[in-house]
Amino acid sequence: MVAKSKNSISKKSSYKIKNKNPLQAKQQSKKNKLKTYILMSKEITSRAQDYSQWYNDLVLKGGLADYSAGRGCMVIKPYGYALWENMQAQLDKMFKETGHENAYFPLFVPKSLFEAEEKNAEGFAKECAVVTHYRLKSDPDNKGKLMVDPEAKLEEELIVRPTSEAIIWNTYKGWIQSYRDLPLLINQWANVVRWEMRTRLFLRTAEFLWQEGHTAHATKKEAVAETELILGIYAEFAETFMATPVIKGLKTANERFAGAEETYCIEAMMQDGKALQAGTSHFLGQNFAKAFDVKFTDKENKLDYVWASSWGVSTRLIGALVMAHSDDEGLVLPPKLAPIQVVIVPIFKGEEQKQLIDKKVTVLLQHLKLAGVKVKYDDNDNNRPGWKFAEYEMKGVPVRIAIGARDLANNVVEVARRDTKEKMSMCIDGLAENIIKLLEDIQVAIYEKARLFRDEHITKADSWDEFVQLLDGKAGFISAHWDGTPQTEEKIKDLAKATIRCIPLNNKQEEGNCILTGAASTQRVLFARAY
Amino acid sequence: MVAKSKNSISKKSSYKIKNKNPLQAKQQSKKNKLKTYILMSKEITSRAQDYSQWYNDLVLKGGLADYSAGRGCMVIKPYGYALWENMQAQLDKMFKETGHENAYFPLFVPKSLFEAEEKNAEGFAKECAVVTHYRLKSDPDNKGKLMVDPEAKLEEELIVRPTSEAIIWNTYKGWIQSYRDLPLLINQWANVVRWEMRTRLFLRTAEFLWQEGHTAHATKKEAVAETELILGIYAEFAETFMATPVIKGLKTANERFAGAEETYCIEAMMQDGKALQAGTSHFLGQNFAKAFDVKFTDKENKLDYVWASSWGVSTRLIGALVMAHSDDEGLVLPPKLAPIQVVIVPIFKGEEQKQLIDKKVTVLLQHLKLAGVKVKYDDNDNNRPGWKFAEYEMKGVPVRIAIGARDLANNVVEVARRDTKEKMSMCIDGLAENIIKLLEDIQVAIYEKARLFRDEHITKADSWDEFVQLLDGKAGFISAHWDGTPQTEEKIKDLAKATIRCIPLNNKQEEGNCILTGAASTQRVLFARAY
Repeated sequence: MVAKSKNSISKKSSYKIKNKNPLQAKQQSKKNKLKTYILMSKEITSRAQDYSQWYNDLVLKGGLADYSAGRGCMVIKPYGYALWENMQAQLDKMFKETGHENAYFPLFVPKSLFEAEEKNAEGFAKECAVVTHYRLKSDPDNKGKLMVDPEAKLEEELIVRPTSEAIIWNTYKGWIQSYRDLPLLINQWANVVRWEMRTRLFLRTAEFLWQEGHTAHATKKEAVAETELILGIYAEFAETFMATPVIKGLKTANERFAGAEETYCIEAMMQDGKALQAGTSHFLGQNFAKAFDVKFTDKENKLDYVWASSWGVSTRLIGALVMAHSDDEGLVLPPKLAPIQVVIVPIFKGEEQKQLIDKKVTVLLQHLKLAGVKVKYDDNDNNRPGWKFAEYEMKGVPVRIAIGARDLANNVVEVARRDTKEKMSMCIDGLAENIIKLLEDIQVAIYEKARLFRDEHITKADSWDEFVQLLDGKAGFISAHWDGTPQTEEKIKDLAKATIRCIPLNNKQEEGNCILTGAASTQRVLFARAY
Repeated sequence: MVAKSKNSISKKSSYKIKNKNPLQAKQQSKKNKLKTYILMSKEITSRAQDYSQWYNDLVLKGGLADYSAGRGCMVIKPYGYALWENMQAQLDKMFKETGHENAYFPLFVPKSLFEAEEKNAEGFAKECAVVTHYRLKSDPDNKGKLMVDPEAKLEEELIVRPTSEAIIWNTYKGWIQSYRDLPLLINQWANVVRWEMRTRLFLRTAEFLWQEGHTAHATKKEAVAETELILGIYAEFAETFMATPVIKGLKTANERFAGAEETYCIEAMMQDGKALQAGTSHFLGQNFAKAFDVKFTDKENKLDYVWASSWGVSTRLIGALVMAHSDDEGLVLPPKLAPIQVVIVPIFKGEEQKQLIDKKVTVLLQHLKLAGVKVKYDDNDNNRPGWKFAEYEMKGVPVRIAIGARDLANNVVEVARRDTKEKMSMCIDGLAENIIKLLEDIQVAIYEKARLFRDEHITKADSWDEFVQLLDGKAGFISAHWDGTPQTEEKIKDLAKATIRCIPLNNKQEEGNCILTGAASTQRVLFARAY
């Protein structure tokens, strides 16, 4: 029995050991292990104590990702990847419904192509991983070890794509001759690499997964419309599926994508009041067409450069999702994206009770699965119900159903919702329908909670003092006047570590004075500290 | 009018110009352009003339892929990628139904990890792309150009994964402690890089897309069972979805995956009689567990190394699909994987006829889409019906429906199947059901045709002369005795450019003599020249 209870928590405790210092781990092993499920939830650092550590705890202990031996790279674990697959499936559907097709372009960009669009190249040059050799050989001084073969040096270095405009526009050159070849509406799901000095799981890693759309158009108007269409899709996805309210806006020149004429963005607010840029859509003008000489014959038989957009969201969205809704007990996932929407935990003594429960659950599972609900029946008898409750709470499963022998006698089950922790008794008759309704309610409730918090944390500041006090105190987005110059923006960033997150679309025009310089301004913009 | 007809073929002719020498392109432009759709099909090199060029023509002109500026890398075009997405969706479903989960591991493998399993490292060392630097900077001697920043040299080089055993087993070390953590059944969809000196679109490119499964087990028996389970999935996928018959077998020691104890494979036969390895599943023994020190506590509380399998199929399957079924007019795609299963082409004069056709087609489209058929109505009036017929023939769309005004009067349509080129008249009543039935028939017919060809091209050889004559003449798989030594296998490869494709599973045991050495042998093995 001792051996068994030891084994039953070994998986969990291994994570503990990895993520804690050895001393703590040792103390842990002395405690009563049957109470591990209670200790577990306590092991998450609270938001109040250390918001940043709280986030790391959630990602690691929620089973979303792990650190890896590759510097700055992460391992996306099955539970985290399932979340990403759900995001991908929905976004992919939205892209295809609006006429986009997927394709795949090479990972490596020859240096001469990479540098063709100078602004873009300059913007990314400092974070490029570079392939210089194509072979290893045995190290003569180190038996069993390898070394880079100096004779296998590439004539031209290859850049591991930080973004694919260069390789794609070089390809489009061969695909576009006439206005009949336009628009070209292509997306790719891919990995990219940006060498970051300070990394954070999901939020900022050297390698990350994303989708990048690259479209080509005959007119400026169409390219701008495409850029805005995609921004709309991103916002709809964030709000309807991630249950995360966002503000649509334009970036200032300082914060624009390197090589873009205009960068549109959606900005979300995290629970610490910091902003997180959740997606960007760029109007690229004719910059890449000029850099790669991509011209087309228009209807009047005149040659002109092609107009472009590019846009992307990444696994960073998982970080946003974690920080937007979760609490001190673990993840809180919106039902529309949760890998497991409903978990059913049996509570029984003896095989006879178990069989009665199994019988009821089989019917319920059928109903739920037929309705497309992602449901898991966890009857693994290695773990106690209390351990399971804590585990699924940690993993943010929206609805938990517990079924015990006494419940069965009364024809009810206990239903717990993860977001509010509310527990209720539900009749087994019509349960599937009520659970589906509950999932919808949770989706709305999570969104509303986040929206309320966000709206309460958008504050006007009309002086520099007020601005700084808000940043250091209440946090959130600060709506303030700015004189419109990059110099002032830069100075505010240096002084207050806050950046202009965006100029909201359809922003209200009003007279005012820049909070820093006092110069005349025609509109407020949104400032915040950001991830 | 002249301008219009010129434009209407501009997209196609651009491809021609790219893929032909300039002289040919010039001659082409002098010909009557209205006949382009006839010329187009003739432009595919025939199999008899040059099988290899035929293949390239299909891939490029069928819109599956394109060459790229990145050496040895290809661009997978939307039509080719849609085919890959269909393959992915089906395989992913089969993996998940058998308990596997997806995850994602880093692109870069630190050299010290890469070399840990020595055989694996040695096997891939010669084809590794190596990242040595993490930054570019402005080139002082070349305004507007970049250079690798010599100060940003990595302390430890990073290998771009050619396969992920090393990085994954280094990660598994942290995930596995007890038998309760096993089995670990994980797959990833990813890009990998193997530096090949001679590349061919889809068949052999420096970067390719694939899935790689990496599983961990408590016993040898379970790991072998997993390896065989996956081989079965691969074979079922190839035969049922790709309509490509395969032979399941074991690789000889020479042809084994570097680091494996046993490599299982499925081998397909192409129309030129050459073999194509379509998927491999490896039993890795405890090799990686030992290299990365991954031990677990078994039920008796004893420590042991973990047992492993790994397995993969790649975008190479698209090459197999192209070569298995296509003909001199273009691609022939199996309905179960075709991005477009049915294309409808209206034939009309004037708006009135068009409207009548549209009305009928709208109903038909609804029926087909409801039944899950991927159908396209091509009423683009820039191209003539004849051009469209040739285009969809080239793209291998299994069924083409042509609807003209006269057909409508007779309540019929003309249906053409791509595989046999048979045309038939079908009544509009019940058309959707008949089309669905036809798609099923085509799937079976394509498979049967390939199977017949394959079976006719497996020939026994009982002497060296017979063996060589068969290879140079009839081609196909040659079933012959081999003395079982790697030396003989190597010699046969040198002399005849043929390799042992596999020792078929459940191979018949029979006495015989090695075709090269005459030494005693207990079974025949399958030889072939291969892709």
